[in-house]
Amino acid sequence: MNQSASEFLDIGVARVDVGRRDRCGFPEVIFGPGKTPEDLARIARTIVDRHGVVLATRVDPAQAHAVCEAIPEAVWHERARCVTVEREPLPKYDGAVAVVCAGTSDLPVAEEAAVTLDVLGNRVERFFDVGVAGIHRLLAVRDAIEACNAVVVVAGMEGALPSAIAGLVSKPVVAVPTSVGYGASFGGLAALLGMLNSCGSGVTVVNIDNGFGAAYSAATINRLLHLAAHRE
Amino acid sequence: MNQSASEFLDIGVARVDVGRRDRCGFPEVIFGPGKTPEDLARIARTIVDRHGVVLATRVDPAQAHAVCEAIPEAVWHERARCVTVEREPLPKYDGAVAVVCAGTSDLPVAEEAAVTLDVLGNRVERFFDVGVAGIHRLLAVRDAIEACNAVVVVAGMEGALPSAIAGLVSKPVVAVPTSVGYGASFGGLAALLGMLNSCGSGVTVVNIDNGFGAAYSAATINRLLHLAAHRE
Amino acid sequence: MNQSASEFLDIGVARVDVGRRDRCGFPEVIFGPGKTPEDLARIARTIVDRHGVVLATRVDPAQAHAVCEAIPEAVWHERARCVTVEREPLPKYDGAVAVVCAGTSDLPVAEEAAVTLDVLGNRVERFFDVGVAGIHRLLAVRDAIEACNAVVVVAGMEGALPSAIAGLVSKPVVAVPTSVGYGASFGGLAALLGMLNSCGSGVTVVNIDNGFGAAYSAATINRLLHLAAHRE
Amino acid sequence: MNQSASEFLDIGVARVDVGRRDRCGFPEVIFGPGKTPEDLARIARTIVDRHGVVLATRVDPAQAHAVCEAIPEAVWHERARCVTVEREPLPKYDGAVAVVCAGTSDLPVAEEAAVTLDVLGNRVERFFDVGVAGIHRLLAVRDAIEACNAVVVVAGMEGALPSAIAGLVSKPVVAVPTSVGYGASFGGLAALLGMLNSCGSGVTVVNIDNGFGAAYSAATINRLLHLAAHRE
Amino acid sequence: MNQSASEFLDIGVARVDVGRRDRCGFPEVIFGPGKTPEDLARIARTIVDRHGVVLATRVDPAQAHAVCEAIPEAVWHERARCVTVEREPLPKYDGAVAVVCAGTSDLPVAEEAAVTLDVLGNRVERFFDVGVAGIHRLLAVRDAIEACNAVVVVAGMEGALPSAIAGLVSKPVVAVPTSVGYGASFGGLAALLGMLNSCGSGVTVVNIDNGFGAAYSAATINRLLHLAAHRE
Amino acid sequence: MNQSASEFLDIGVARVDVGRRDRCGFPEVIFGPGKTPEDLARIARTIVDRHGVVLATRVDPAQAHAVCEAIPEAVWHERARCVTVEREPLPKYDGAVAVVCAGTSDLPVAEEAAVTLDVLGNRVERFFDVGVAGIHRLLAVRDAIEACNAVVVVAGMEGALPSAIAGLVSKPVVAVPTSVGYGASFGGLAALLGMLNSCGSGVTVVNIDNGFGAAYSAATINRLLHLAAHRE
Amino acid sequence: MNQSASEFLDIGVARVDVGRRDRCGFPEVIFGPGKTPEDLARIARTIVDRHGVVLATRVDPAQAHAVCEAIPEAVWHERARCVTVEREPLPKYDGAVAVVCAGTSDLPVAEEAAVTLDVLGNRVERFFDVGVAGIHRLLAVRDAIEACNAVVVVAGMEGALPSAIAGLVSKPVVAVPTSVGYGASFGGLAALLGMLNSCGSGVTVVNIDNGFGAAYSAATINRLLHLAAHRE
Amino acid sequence: MNQSASEFLDIGVARVDVGRRDRCGFPEVIFGPGKTPEDLARIARTIVDRHGVVLATRVDPAQAHAVCEAIPEAVWHERARCVTVEREPLPKYDGAVAVVCAGTSDLPVAEEAAVTLDVLGNRVERFFDVGVAGIHRLLAVRDAIEACNAVVVVAGMEGALPSAIAGLVSKPVVAVPTSVGYGASFGGLAALLGMLNSCGSGVTVVNIDNGFGAAYSAATINRLLHLAAHRE
Repeated sequence: MNQSASEFLDIGVARVDVGRRDRCGFPEVIFGPGKTPEDLARIARTIVDRHGVVLATRVDPAQAHAVCEAIPEAVWHERARCVTVEREPLPKYDGAVAVVCAGTSDLPVAEEAAVTLDVLGNRVERFFDVGVAGIHRLLAVRDAIEACNAVVVVAGMEGALPSAIAGLVSKPVVAVPTSVGYGASFGGLAALLGMLNSCGSGVTVVNIDNGFGAAYSAATINRLLHLAAHRE
Repeated sequence: MNQSASEFLDIGVARVDVGRRDRCGFPEVIFGPGKTPEDLARIARTIVDRHGVVLATRVDPAQAHAVCEAIPEAVWHERARCVTVEREPLPKYDGAVAVVCAGTSDLPVAEEAAVTLDVLGNRVERFFDVGVAGIHRLLAVRDAIEACNAVVVVAGMEGALPSAIAGLVSKPVVAVPTSVGYGASFGGLAALLGMLNSCGSGVTVVNIDNGFGAAYSAATINRLLHLAAHRE
Repeated sequence: MNQSASEFLDIGVARVDVGRRDRCGFPEVIFGPGKTPEDLARIARTIVDRHGVVLATRVDPAQAHAVCEAIPEAVWHERARCVTVEREPLPKYDGAVAVVCAGTSDLPVAEEAAVTLDVLGNRVERFFDVGVAGIHRLLAVRDAIEACNAVVVVAGMEGALPSAIAGLVSKPVVAVPTSVGYGASFGGLAALLGMLNSCGSGVTVVNIDNGFGAAYSAATINRLLHLAAHRE
Repeated sequence: MNQSASEFLDIGVARVDVGRRDRCGFPEVIFGPGKTPEDLARIARTIVDRHGVVLATRVDPAQAHAVCEAIPEAVWHERARCVTVEREPLPKYDGAVAVVCAGTSDLPVAEEAAVTLDVLGNRVERFFDVGVAGIHRLLAVRDAIEACNAVVVVAGMEGALPSAIAGLVSKPVVAVPTSVGYGASFGGLAALLGMLNSCGSGVTVVNIDNGFGAAYSAATINRLLHLAAHRE
Repeated sequence: MNQSASEFLDIGVARVDVGRRDRCGFPEVIFGPGKTPEDLARIARTIVDRHGVVLATRVDPAQAHAVCEAIPEAVWHERARCVTVEREPLPKYDGAVAVVCAGTSDLPVAEEAAVTLDVLGNRVERFFDVGVAGIHRLLAVRDAIEACNAVVVVAGMEGALPSAIAGLVSKPVVAVPTSVGYGASFGGLAALLGMLNSCGSGVTVVNIDNGFGAAYSAATINRLLHLAAHRE
Repeated sequence: MNQSASEFLDIGVARVDVGRRDRCGFPEVIFGPGKTPEDLARIARTIVDRHGVVLATRVDPAQAHAVCEAIPEAVWHERARCVTVEREPLPKYDGAVAVVCAGTSDLPVAEEAAVTLDVLGNRVERFFDVGVAGIHRLLAVRDAIEACNAVVVVAGMEGALPSAIAGLVSKPVVAVPTSVGYGASFGGLAALLGMLNSCGSGVTVVNIDNGFGAAYSAATINRLLHLAAHRE
Repeated sequence: MNQSASEFLDIGVARVDVGRRDRCGFPEVIFGPGKTPEDLARIARTIVDRHGVVLATRVDPAQAHAVCEAIPEAVWHERARCVTVEREPLPKYDGAVAVVCAGTSDLPVAEEAAVTLDVLGNRVERFFDVGVAGIHRLLAVRDAIEACNAVVVVAGMEGALPSAIAGLVSKPVVAVPTSVGYGASFGGLAALLGMLNSCGSGVTVVNIDNGFGAAYSAATINRLLHLAAHRE
Repeated sequence: MNQSASEFLDIGVARVDVGRRDRCGFPEVIFGPGKTPEDLARIARTIVDRHGVVLATRVDPAQAHAVCEAIPEAVWHERARCVTVEREPLPKYDGAVAVVCAGTSDLPVAEEAAVTLDVLGNRVERFFDVGVAGIHRLLAVRDAIEACNAVVVVAGMEGALPSAIAGLVSKPVVAVPTSVGYGASFGGLAALLGMLNSCGSGVTVVNIDNGFGAAYSAATINRLLHLAAHRE
């Protein structure tokens, strides 16, 4: 590995890691909070000029507006709180990734995962409003989930859904606890602990509300599967 | 209500609340930890002489031995860590209470619940080794659980079982988190938080490992149902 | 049990569990937070058209307005933060449920419990402003509480009230910790832990501020008692 | 205030604060844990030679043995885990201090408080086995508690007893949470938080299991009252 | 003790404990949060009509305005967030209570303590801006603090001040942790834990920001001392 | 999906999920704690008779002895605390999985992961004693890690290693926090939180010390890649 | 040491410790929160009149405006949230202090450190946007950091940067966790715990977001080095 | 910086970082827990053969015995739980480092700091048994502490000592919280939080009981001062 300091582009407010796509398979992703709309737009333009594709997450309306002004192809996914630019889209993979969601309140996080997966080249299958307290809804979609290459499960409150799904399918399950709930949910802590203690083998977990991280991990898997299938 | 101080019997080491059975329906229950075997045996004998029935929980072998020496009819339930005496058994109720258990490691707590229910006059239906990660085991016993008057659900790790059961049956569900687990289970905290945040309507929760408390609550319900059915 | 996928009604924003009333005895209840007023109104209309009765909890004024616009019979219970529709009211049960409350600050949670009990067919007896620091207020109403079939106890701060009540009555006690307090109340954690460690036998607990859940559990008990008494 | 460095006596293992009695009214108290039996005996002898009175708390049997060997007048209070020496006893005060205790498991902490009060010159009134779940036991002793000058209340589990007592008497109430309990008692945290959130006005709290600290505070009050009454 | 239900006055929004002054020495105190301005004013008027004196704490400007409109003699202590009415002031005690404060940010809590002490009949000596990091400021006022009958110490951040003071004076020290700080102060938790673990003998602690509670406890002590000195 | 109750084999102490291999790709794994040696041996024999392969984790020496007595082919991996039986080994996959480890103290958890991977048919590449404080050790093995299909990273203390690795390679990284550390590591909590907050995109996390779970997840990925490459 | 009470200047709202510069090497620093703009300006003027130099941290715009109105030389550092006055600047030291920063979101805290260092007489070398997930950015600046006398490392999320730096340089490293992050970062707790458990020898830590404290400590070191080099 | 992989010496159980002394100024230090006596002795011998000096911390008696058997010059510091070997001692520095300690129970941690400082070439001044509750002991040694180049302050319980010292001296203060205490000390958490929230400017903190880490940081400072003074 022979990475050098010239892989970084200094644009004043940040040193953009323009070598990351070569090293890790995807370009650097922008995390919105704490950046001024102008800075965020400038960083986005720097990345899109280099790679033709951008994903910014946790973007508020003012930031989204600034990026859309600066880059005509930018798309503002309001519910997902993301902005994407696909001037030169990443290659699309054969397989799909399932995004499963326990309740309507979990939609913003589930959509963040879905938008991330989409821009990273994955086909997304959405299974929203599937919960443990109504187990038959889950059984009804079990085969459709199994047909995907990886599963992102988003759930708040007690976070029991990933355990139930991991017991039904043979694909990697990445669980995202959400901060949905009140009282003893302690901002998603209950769901997080529930998922970490899952009795379902092989469930892995990301930070509370981190739909992006789960999608990124699932996309890594789906991409490897695509490459494996197309390697001769 | 005209309770007087003479309802208490002072036996030196404790003032036994001998009026409790009239007030609350059941005699006072003995909590073992921190009592010497001799003191525990003395308290047990005082209660059995008054009421003909005793339940002692969290009893260690030395304590159990002392009680069994002092009271010939005493029975030592080793796995449940309980001692019972039924010289004059409490009346038996018509209905049954289900005790559902997520894993073999939860057995001590589930048995504490079952022994408590039994001595309090309830028929007990045990459904052990039913977990969320193998949902079909649960569906297979759903109707048998629904046939009971109340359900005690004992579960460690992520504590998801009560949610799943509450979505399937119409009876009161009392959830008992257990300290089974490791790491981020934090001694049962994960299961406790999971149950408190249950998406299943009407699940109520007791302290970690408190099989007795859940059984007591379920017995109260079953007793009221018995009385309601036999009242003319 | 032969539930099928056709028990679910897909209305776009949510797949409503229209089979729940048959399975669990009550139709699905709507949790307000995170839903747009329009979505909430649409879900409410779907349920009321199927079952003739709706309960929505944690409803903010804008949501309440939308539901009341969409359904003429809708009632907005401001202090309880609930909307109810009783086009075809549920059957009323003989017995009453007590709602006991430690202080005026706990009223919103106590009212959520009371409104829930009411729409589910229960007669409600309110005992508000009864606290442990003024024990004589409690003793004065002890017999009236005992006359109910179940007791919902709502308390913030140190959450000691359920212990005191459980020592005085023979009916099931469901405790609701509230987030009332400051400093080391840690948003209701102190009350929650206090209730879970209650020295009163048979106290069960629900999530912080979850008046609905406690009421639902108490209603389940009251309904079973009604059925037991009327079964011949 | 003109305290000088010569108020300290260097005995190798510790610099004993021999001026403390003049400054604060009581000589320095020895905390046992982490000291070798020999060191503890040496410190005790240094203090008793200066002041004629010693209190050592949290003393284990080996430490107690060493002190009793070194000082003939030493007394080992086993349940309280204290050693006292009263070669020249402190003056006795007129008034009494109440020590109230919620359960037999709280006895070691309550006895630590009682022994501390005794050696500091206070008359002690013990009210053990008085709990919130059996409120009539408490009402029966209310007047006897009110007759004391200060009240130390020791309680584990939910720690509700101080609130109930503070609502009944007009004397200062010092609450001691104990580590008695299991599960969500979290080693006394539940009782501690309960007491800090007490709805009873004027309850003050000390560390978990700190019977000594509560007694010391109550003794300070009782001593001031004695001085006030005897000042002419 | 022969307290009856007629000691309570039902004013619709609350059952005022009008017998409390006889039982505990002070009338009931009003806690502002969660009450409408109208309700608070009504409760205040009820109490002042009975006892001639009122203290309301944590009062916001709108509530204060309502009380001042309703009761001409009402005084709004802005920094202390209290309203007092002294139509018939309580008797004044001889001795003083010290209020010691670690920093200017702790002033609101210290003032709540001072106003509470004042209305309860105590002379208040204020020692503000005395901290552990500048120990000489503390030594300079040591004798003046010792001259008081009790000491209320208010401190945020690491909460070390009560330990330092308890090592210098012989009077009861009541410590109030404040929520002043940031980061790992966790809303006053650091100060609270520091005070509970104080190495100074006899320090007792109240809830975070609870200036009222500390003052109430100190007032109880000062009142007893006054009574002891004036009893012949 | 047409799973039936006959997929379960009732052997008294447990209902073994013998259908799991078909549903999820691997047979049921045995978690040792809380099982008697005899029960564990019986469960192991039941599974090996059905599937020819067994993995038991967190096995203590007495349990291991019992299994090895009962099943001649059983192997006791002492450092990993695992027992494996490979009477009919699972098929071997082409790709390798890397197990990276931050320090010698993390070896038991890393070995649990390695043994699990091995029995599940994966080639294992061990990279032990690679830490963030000596970054050059990590850079030296970067290419060898990248050559694997998935990476299990085991680390205690501050848990920073997964972030560093995720920034260097393009493969899925599953992080395992360990309970190695003292003081503010709080039994692995510091490492767990560090990994959940990883700035490295796509890191997923399992429970503290859960080497098995991370390995299971990595094996799922490696197996899918094998299948994808061999599908024609 | 012969400090007297006359070292304090009473200005009504505060007793300014004007002797602190002699005792500790730097004048008293003003912490903004909780002070009115007027009080803050007054305190600032008192200090600048005595010492000719002022640093106020956590200053909001209104406070900054008031100080700048009152003191013409005052400078408002907006991003750092500091106001400085250098009417008579402190002596400048030879050596430099490095301020290293993990991400653009950490800039306010890093700037607080840099401004503090500057006013205290230190040359500041800024290394911003250097993170563990892009290790090559760090290696590229390693020698420049080593050339400084002390290193302040500011990092949020998992807080891994100080460990990596401590393994590369021989200078004292002071770590500042920041509250940057979401979910399981718990307001900076994850970064704080990570830094406290650093595997890098000799890393010391300050409170979350406490850029000032870290800078103050580094300045103390740099000043001593300057004095040591210039002492003959 | 031109470090290569050959700087590491692979001895089977560990890859020893033999280049660390050149990079960071001190050779690698051995952390005892989790290593077999044989492995620890082997690692120690490897390091001493390369550098002539070894420090192993948290060493239990069996480990110490193994090292002393293997290396004749090894010294076992029992109270400090350290083993040192100084075959070729490190150069000695001119200045001293103060180790200040709040109580006899803190001695093991204070001694770990002192032994570490000694082997790293520093003169150590011990100030043991100096606490905040007896402030005059501290004032008596203030000038002797100020004469040192850096101060390590070890304290349990409320951890207030560093604040008091930082207000009195001008040297860098490194604070070590200890796990000494009980109840709400939560294993040293109270002391840790107290130190992080210190009102004393420039206090930095290390992990609970980490005497080594604090000493290492202080030694780094003392070494730089020595170098600065001897550079011409």
